Amino acid sequence: MPVIRPATAADWPALWAFLQPTFAAGDTYAYDPDSSEADIRKVWMDLPAATFVACGEQGQVLGTYYLKANQPGLGAHVCNAGYVVAPVAQGQGVAAAMCEHSQEQARALGFLAMQFNLVVSTNERAVRLWSHLGFATVGRLPGAFRHARLGLVDALVMFKTL
Amino acid sequence: MPVIRPATAADWPALWAFLQPTFAAGDTYAYDPDSSEADIRKVWMDLPAATFVACGEQGQVLGTYYLKANQPGLGAHVCNAGYVVAPVAQGQGVAAAMCEHSQEQARALGFLAMQFNLVVSTNERAVRLWSHLGFATVGRLPGAFRHARLGLVDALVMFKTL
Repeated sequence: MPVIRPATAADWPALWAFLQPTFAAGDTYAYDPDSSEADIRKVWMDLPAATFVACGEQGQVLGTYYLKANQPGLGAHVCNAGYVVAPVAQGQGVAAAMCEHSQEQARALGFLAMQFNLVVSTNERAVRLWSHLGFATVGRLPGAFRHARLGLVDALVMFKTL
Repeated sequence: MPVIRPATAADWPALWAFLQPTFAAGDTYAYDPDSSEADIRKVWMDLPAATFVACGEQGQVLGTYYLKANQPGLGAHVCNAGYVVAPVAQGQGVAAAMCEHSQEQARALGFLAMQFNLVVSTNERAVRLWSHLGFATVGRLPGAFRHARLGLVDALVMFKTL
């Protein structure tokens, strides 16, 4: 199991090394595939309430996630999170470990629920994993994601009460 | 029918006069009921792609709406809009006129769809109006809105392809 700890500024180069190709692929996250390092650093490290890294036995970074309120004020009891696993660490349970960890952290921060706003419907591995971890598909957005290879595909809204 | 035109800086005091009590009531929008004028001016006037006002025959402001991309990059073909009608102008079709106008503007700006992320389920007038104007309820978020009088109530995700 990975060790999950708060991200520090020193982690950023290791995160960017796999965040950049992940977003550039244009098949999982809405961030512009041409986003600059500064733009992604802002949304991943600066704006969220918290950012974590999952590390392997030698301390190498295997994945990262952020946690933030999904809406202001009267919607701020529901959080949002985003997870990315480094390509070399796929299929080892890192995403599941981060999602479980994020739910504990969210509860500790006082959040009552977690919402994913734009789960790409063709990202079957993610949909299956979040479902397995107790998230319900509460909405389907027709053609809301412009997939780099498949064109406009549906996106799902997934939700879990914590 | 109201005349709908782009908002200018000179309109702001008239907008704030009804935006403030609307958000303070805590029954329709998630903005913190104690939001400062500067905070709301930023989210209503500065951050959106466009902000409009609906005016009566004497030029008085009856309502306002904003239009913006709902997600970055690969989700930016779907827009989001928010509408507020001044209390003195309720029930005169101002919201419907603004919603129709916003769809035309959205198409002109190249948006392919419009999404409302957090329609308060107890705001029956709004739900009925958006449904009448062709928006489908594509999701239901359990307890996602902390209503000032009713506590946690469900919120709806509504969507229309333009």
